Amino acid sequence: MAATKQVYIGIIGAGGVGKAFLSQLEQLAKRRPDPKLVLTYLSTSSKALYSDNHAAIDIPTAVTQLQNNSVGAPLALPKIAEYLASVPGGKAVLIDNTSNQDIAESYPLFLSKGVSVVTPNKKAFSGSYKLWQDIFSAAATSGAKVYHESSCGAGLPVISTLKDLVDTGDEVTRIEGVFSGTMSFLFNSFAPTEGAGGKWSAEVTKAKELGYTEPDPRDDLNGLDVARKLTILARLAGLPIESPTSFPVQSLIPKELESVASGDEFLQKLPEFDSQMEDVKTAAEKEGKVVRFVGSIDVASKQVKVGLEKFDRSHPIAALKGSDNIISFYTKRYGSNPLIIQGAGAGGEVTAMGVTSDLIKVLSQI
Amino acid sequence: MAATKQVYIGIIGAGGVGKAFLSQLEQLAKRRPDPKLVLTYLSTSSKALYSDNHAAIDIPTAVTQLQNNSVGAPLALPKIAEYLASVPGGKAVLIDNTSNQDIAESYPLFLSKGVSVVTPNKKAFSGSYKLWQDIFSAAATSGAKVYHESSCGAGLPVISTLKDLVDTGDEVTRIEGVFSGTMSFLFNSFAPTEGAGGKWSAEVTKAKELGYTEPDPRDDLNGLDVARKLTILARLAGLPIESPTSFPVQSLIPKELESVASGDEFLQKLPEFDSQMEDVKTAAEKEGKVVRFVGSIDVASKQVKVGLEKFDRSHPIAALKGSDNIISFYTKRYGSNPLIIQGAGAGGEVTAMGVTSDLIKVLSQI
Repeated sequence: MAATKQVYIGIIGAGGVGKAFLSQLEQLAKRRPDPKLVLTYLSTSSKALYSDNHAAIDIPTAVTQLQNNSVGAPLALPKIAEYLASVPGGKAVLIDNTSNQDIAESYPLFLSKGVSVVTPNKKAFSGSYKLWQDIFSAAATSGAKVYHESSCGAGLPVISTLKDLVDTGDEVTRIEGVFSGTMSFLFNSFAPTEGAGGKWSAEVTKAKELGYTEPDPRDDLNGLDVARKLTILARLAGLPIESPTSFPVQSLIPKELESVASGDEFLQKLPEFDSQMEDVKTAAEKEGKVVRFVGSIDVASKQVKVGLEKFDRSHPIAALKGSDNIISFYTKRYGSNPLIIQGAGAGGEVTAMGVTSDLIKVLSQI
Repeated sequence: MAATKQVYIGIIGAGGVGKAFLSQLEQLAKRRPDPKLVLTYLSTSSKALYSDNHAAIDIPTAVTQLQNNSVGAPLALPKIAEYLASVPGGKAVLIDNTSNQDIAESYPLFLSKGVSVVTPNKKAFSGSYKLWQDIFSAAATSGAKVYHESSCGAGLPVISTLKDLVDTGDEVTRIEGVFSGTMSFLFNSFAPTEGAGGKWSAEVTKAKELGYTEPDPRDDLNGLDVARKLTILARLAGLPIESPTSFPVQSLIPKELESVASGDEFLQKLPEFDSQMEDVKTAAEKEGKVVRFVGSIDVASKQVKVGLEKFDRSHPIAALKGSDNIISFYTKRYGSNPLIIQGAGAGGEVTAMGVTSDLIKVLSQI
């Protein structure tokens, strides 16, 4: 029998997703001895573990090793690409567990050197359309793989399902859904299908306290996170969307609070604007509906939009629970009833799961 | 550049799914020139197209060619395996678009000879546990691939999602859902969440007229189709289920009608037993619920069962529409809110789509 193949793994990022992924990688390496997975690079924004001979880093203690004072600074991105491209046997995968723009922009470099890329980082796929094209043409030329399931809906099979629909020749006519766990939680509490719900500012404050929002909640309320996900899906469906700001995105930040200095000041002043959201809720209720923050892509008319919409209380989007996402794919083959994917679309463990399942797909192909 | 790789395709079955698949294969071959797809064997139960030199069969006219009087009988299964194993370059995929037991039992032979298998045929994966083990050990030994997404929920990403959950180390605790388009249609009409619904026998007759049931509706009402799907999912979740008859399956065929000669006679006499199902419906209504025909797998207690259960009207299983399937995966990572897949789980086009997407996965790996 041939010797067991080795695949070298380089990881950037050791935050919530990064730590969950390391734990899943450790289990994966135990369950699947072939190919042998060799962690050979691990970095945060300030420190990195690596060695001239691409030695294996012990996975269970990797994060602790990284905290050692003697550990030096990370390599520059082109150096990391060179380092991974020169592993013995030539098989390497970069796992980018950050949301960093510079790393995203370096994917074409990694891919052109034959290093596959797996990432939950939305920046690369929702940045300029040129970056999108550069990434996929670099991969096509070198044969390296690029997977990013967790860039939309975390571990939910959203991107793989859309790819399957497109690759098998189905015609995707419309995609709509709730793409943000934060927005889902806010509206399921603010405008529940049963009962009255709380005041808008109180729900935002509660969501922040529960850790469901970014440190500054405006980074969720501006709609950009949802717009990035829609950009990715629209491009996969064949629309050459230029950027996440090239279609209408409704911000839920009152104009007057856009420029206040801090998230805390924003939360302090938000109650003054509660009547705005209350009016929206009441208008929906008068039609027997509830309001939700959704994104939609109409493929035929090439229209993408993000914002508030009203739904019947029995609609699956209205009936969502907790911070779940729901994504409906309307296609020619599926007819009037869409293919629906629903479940938790955020969180370290499920995001890392999408990264791990992508890695498994890459391992089966390189 | 290296010459374009060729992959040879052998197809058994040219019924509803088979024809839809041939049309998708034709489009796929046009869109993806690499690897070149060569259809080299196509058969029904009585006729087959093939040639000593593995010549390419023209895909658009393949079904018409098959109808020609001069076309001979199909090869015996071991001969088909030899034929596909000996294609130039050695890369071949058997597509079994039948529901035939004998073909299912020959998969280990095909796989052991290095021929990959893609199929919507439930028989192989829900037959004896020994056959299941033989299939996957033959594949592991030879490196040939075996994919069967459409054996549960047609093209819905049910099997791939369950595999991803298991392969990434999540702990699946429970799977439940509506796994039959026929049963879904029957109960959504018989016991709708709003309105009264029709008589049971009238709904069964209507479903048959619309082509939603097997020629003899008892083949749906006996629950075996659902039991087969549950067997497959339970095995993927790690339970060594012996067969689809080794756990409780509730049949909706009144005892007295089990042995009547024909489906027509069954439908004629079914109204005499309407009170039985009416009682079930009324009992659910008294609790404010509706009745549905569901399957469930409790992984921890190793319990699998198929039959009638009551659900709150707001439960996603109760709110299902048309003939849609819904499958909920409860796992450790996803917590109290399950990962849900919903949509059409039957029909030639969507079943063929699952086959085509499986084929694409095989092509990327062989």
